[in-house]
Amino acid sequence: MKETIGSVTIPEITLPSGVTMKNVAQVYAMYGEPNANADNVIVVCHALTGSHRLAGVKIDGQPEPWWDTIVGDGKTLDTKKYCVICFNNLASPYGSTSPISIDPDTGEKYRMKFPMLSPRDVAAAQKAALELLGFKKLRAVVGGSLGGMIALEIAISFPDDVEKCGLIAAPDKLYPQAIAFNTVQRQTIMNDPEWKNGEYEGAGPVNGLSAARMLAMITYRSEQSFSERYMREMDDNSSKGWGGQFRVESYLYHHGEELVKRFDANCYLYLTRMMDLHDIGIGRGGVAKAWERFAGKKLLAVGISSDMLFANWQVEEAARDASNAGVLAEYDEIESENGHDAFLIDFDQLDEFLRGLLIS
Amino acid sequence: MKETIGSVTIPEITLPSGVTMKNVAQVYAMYGEPNANADNVIVVCHALTGSHRLAGVKIDGQPEPWWDTIVGDGKTLDTKKYCVICFNNLASPYGSTSPISIDPDTGEKYRMKFPMLSPRDVAAAQKAALELLGFKKLRAVVGGSLGGMIALEIAISFPDDVEKCGLIAAPDKLYPQAIAFNTVQRQTIMNDPEWKNGEYEGAGPVNGLSAARMLAMITYRSEQSFSERYMREMDDNSSKGWGGQFRVESYLYHHGEELVKRFDANCYLYLTRMMDLHDIGIGRGGVAKAWERFAGKKLLAVGISSDMLFANWQVEEAARDASNAGVLAEYDEIESENGHDAFLIDFDQLDEFLRGLLIS
Repeated sequence: MKETIGSVTIPEITLPSGVTMKNVAQVYAMYGEPNANADNVIVVCHALTGSHRLAGVKIDGQPEPWWDTIVGDGKTLDTKKYCVICFNNLASPYGSTSPISIDPDTGEKYRMKFPMLSPRDVAAAQKAALELLGFKKLRAVVGGSLGGMIALEIAISFPDDVEKCGLIAAPDKLYPQAIAFNTVQRQTIMNDPEWKNGEYEGAGPVNGLSAARMLAMITYRSEQSFSERYMREMDDNSSKGWGGQFRVESYLYHHGEELVKRFDANCYLYLTRMMDLHDIGIGRGGVAKAWERFAGKKLLAVGISSDMLFANWQVEEAARDASNAGVLAEYDEIESENGHDAFLIDFDQLDEFLRGLLIS
Repeated sequence: MKETIGSVTIPEITLPSGVTMKNVAQVYAMYGEPNANADNVIVVCHALTGSHRLAGVKIDGQPEPWWDTIVGDGKTLDTKKYCVICFNNLASPYGSTSPISIDPDTGEKYRMKFPMLSPRDVAAAQKAALELLGFKKLRAVVGGSLGGMIALEIAISFPDDVEKCGLIAAPDKLYPQAIAFNTVQRQTIMNDPEWKNGEYEGAGPVNGLSAARMLAMITYRSEQSFSERYMREMDDNSSKGWGGQFRVESYLYHHGEELVKRFDANCYLYLTRMMDLHDIGIGRGGVAKAWERFAGKKLLAVGISSDMLFANWQVEEAARDASNAGVLAEYDEIESENGHDAFLIDFDQLDEFLRGLLIS
């Protein structure tokens, strides 16, 4: 399997939110090759702290591949057959234009002057980048979590160019409990005096970002998985806790510390707010009208039984909304105790559902 | 109904954890009167940020009553019949000895030198205070959430003196997801530079405590209740948010701001850690052995269908553990979308269950 990392720059684009951006970098990874008609393209969209690197070997200084089990030669997203492309999302720190990029209008980093973007804006930028790369028609767009929201917006914004959509562990609009979790996470970052209204140099608000990640990790897993893995076991070798440290605490601290090494706090603020703004119905006369744009096309919606961030019924509701609007929608569910992150863990079930989408 | 607010001081007590404390203040509220044999006493234990004030009118400068619908003349905990007593928990800022009290050994506030206490320690102090007040035998001990854990520890620590126990929305040991939520809350406080390792004067780490409360409020409610009350409605009159403010965000900010007016951050740290340490089995040869101490006595365990903090199955498991150990245990469930806080909201169902416990 060939992995190509590249970047295209969109000279100027006016996004659905109305904001115009110049010199928009769209970093991508491409797996496999386009065929002669360039009609074998599948776009995968990544989640909050993920990156464009779907597959391949671990490379120092490069983000870790997150769907290597799914994408590759002979795998479900078969790179002998398809050209699989994943863009680094706008506002993410892995190379595409984001709060850590230089604003061409000022010559300074965007920081908190970066525009507020929704998944629909990110989708529009990725579609524009695809056209610059010479790809008009897409066999499918697929994504999980925030990536699912962006994939869905590509499908609904450009229905004439998209055959199929895979919406994994994501709803068609964000529900308020998920907004609430994001709000608290942003609060921990903004409360950190090292945040300095976004004007930090260097690592910045690592305590705040770490606490945000700790909270996020609770929502990515499940009560069942924590109980099975850790229950009330104590961690003998740890000194961070207060009055001893439970293993579940060590787990959270570890993930907090790991994220601050590889992520930017302002980007985290923008990306969680992007998620909050997810609502396919807004500006389109409601969710039903939005789904009608994709009528006659195929949707696979995959919920996760133990997902506490975007509950299975929300994904099922999306499939029902879609079906009622004439979309050829199927709902499947990953039975798992791994919570929201099951789409990065329980590949057997996901593989089967995705194969079904691609051959249907 | 007569409400008596009082305080007893325990000259010296060695708690189950091994720590010895001097001049331990135990503030209490008493509703109704003891009978001649002083055998009509029901002890109610309060939750994390609650207080000893169960019932009565709102009084400026006094904490707000939290179970007025349940406690009073002719009510379920009938103050014409029972003498209902609630102590302010050790480590809580409402008058009993806590991190904001003066340590008699140093003449300084305890702050972070306050001893780490478990619900079992709090239970032992309340039992000692009861004996100082002249009450040996208890008709029942009842509590919700952290109060349920303390009530359960009174029952299991002093089974000869307790007839019945009402365990509401609380497990017999804390599960790791609840520990995880507490850990993140403490982290937000300890990350606040105004915390100063607990050595703050005045309000202290209000940003951190507020963020902790915001997170806690998510766990006290439920996805369903947020969806029904707020869905994606925006709050037009609010300026706190970033890119507008959803109503669910206003709700969280409001509760964060309210708590910091009435609570102390060091106390919050100690009380959440107290909850983490809840495990009736520890030091007793396991949960089953612990329940055997209460064999032959009555337990009412009440779960809440939508409780995301202490899931209904955890409370049901406690009832099953109890029953297997010979306790006369009954499990009932509040059917509600109000989440963990249903024990402070859905009084109709709770009333019925508690009446059942008292007449049985």
